[in-house]
Amino acid sequence: MHRIPIELLTKAAFSPFGEVIETDFVDAIVINEGFALRVNNLAQIDVAADAGAVDISLFVAKARQRPIKVRIMERHPLGSQMFLPLQERSWLILVCVDPLIPASYRAFEASGRQGVNYARNTWHHPLLVLYDDERFLVVDRKGPGNNLEEVRVDDPIELAGLDFGL
Amino acid sequence: MHRIPIELLTKAAFSPFGEVIETDFVDAIVINEGFALRVNNLAQIDVAADAGAVDISLFVAKARQRPIKVRIMERHPLGSQMFLPLQERSWLILVCVDPLIPASYRAFEASGRQGVNYARNTWHHPLLVLYDDERFLVVDRKGPGNNLEEVRVDDPIELAGLDFGL
Repeated sequence: MHRIPIELLTKAAFSPFGEVIETDFVDAIVINEGFALRVNNLAQIDVAADAGAVDISLFVAKARQRPIKVRIMERHPLGSQMFLPLQERSWLILVCVDPLIPASYRAFEASGRQGVNYARNTWHHPLLVLYDDERFLVVDRKGPGNNLEEVRVDDPIELAGLDFGL
Repeated sequence: MHRIPIELLTKAAFSPFGEVIETDFVDAIVINEGFALRVNNLAQIDVAADAGAVDISLFVAKARQRPIKVRIMERHPLGSQMFLPLQERSWLILVCVDPLIPASYRAFEASGRQGVNYARNTWHHPLLVLYDDERFLVVDRKGPGNNLEEVRVDDPIELAGLDFGL
């Protein structure tokens, strides 16, 4: 059994896999005559390949049984995929360099104010939430072509640390 | 004084001005081996004019003093602009056909699960929230060209009904 420890999500740690959607407001600009702050460029949306366009969608996810065992990983060869939680509760992210190499997996705990934008071709687990009916805004690609690759994972891999506070 | 009544936000009522970002799940598809529902095409992102691209940004807004008086309206001639609340609290939307014609104004109360996507060139008021520090994900256009038109409103126009429950 290969157990993947859960790290706190940071921009630096996640950079090989995509972007973290969050801000420290350092780049905030004041707009609307002082009634709002705006922070631009939180994610680079990469969906134009092969006549693709932006799809705005809503996901509603169910919690997995614990321990969370990895059975499938997926990636999108034609575009990025962004997830932003619509409630302020932590959620999990599992990515890897190669689904068949357990040592290449990384798991992250995101806060309810952190989203991610998986880079094109980043292997990731389908949405992993800790409670039922968690809602996410998703920004990814619609258009012609096959934008989904899935790989079954037979090696026993599970997330470690879920018994400790999550 | 022209007072604009506040209507409940519905797709039909808002259709002259853009899209309401919400779903009744009629078009939901089951994904992730049953662990998630997905609803596609919640908004048509229209930002490609003149070499524009999608900007993903965060707005944090302050509540206005009541009564809310209209002093400025704006529109974006080069693209759509989508607002989705990141907390489940009601917020307000004010649009018009012509900023100088008070009778052309419409005001809406959106729930905390409703966003809007203003169509290109729809006149709208800057973000109107009922509490401080309300957070919104915004999807609009970045790129060359002037994508902001503003008009000062001198006629006294204010939102009606804010004393009744909002």
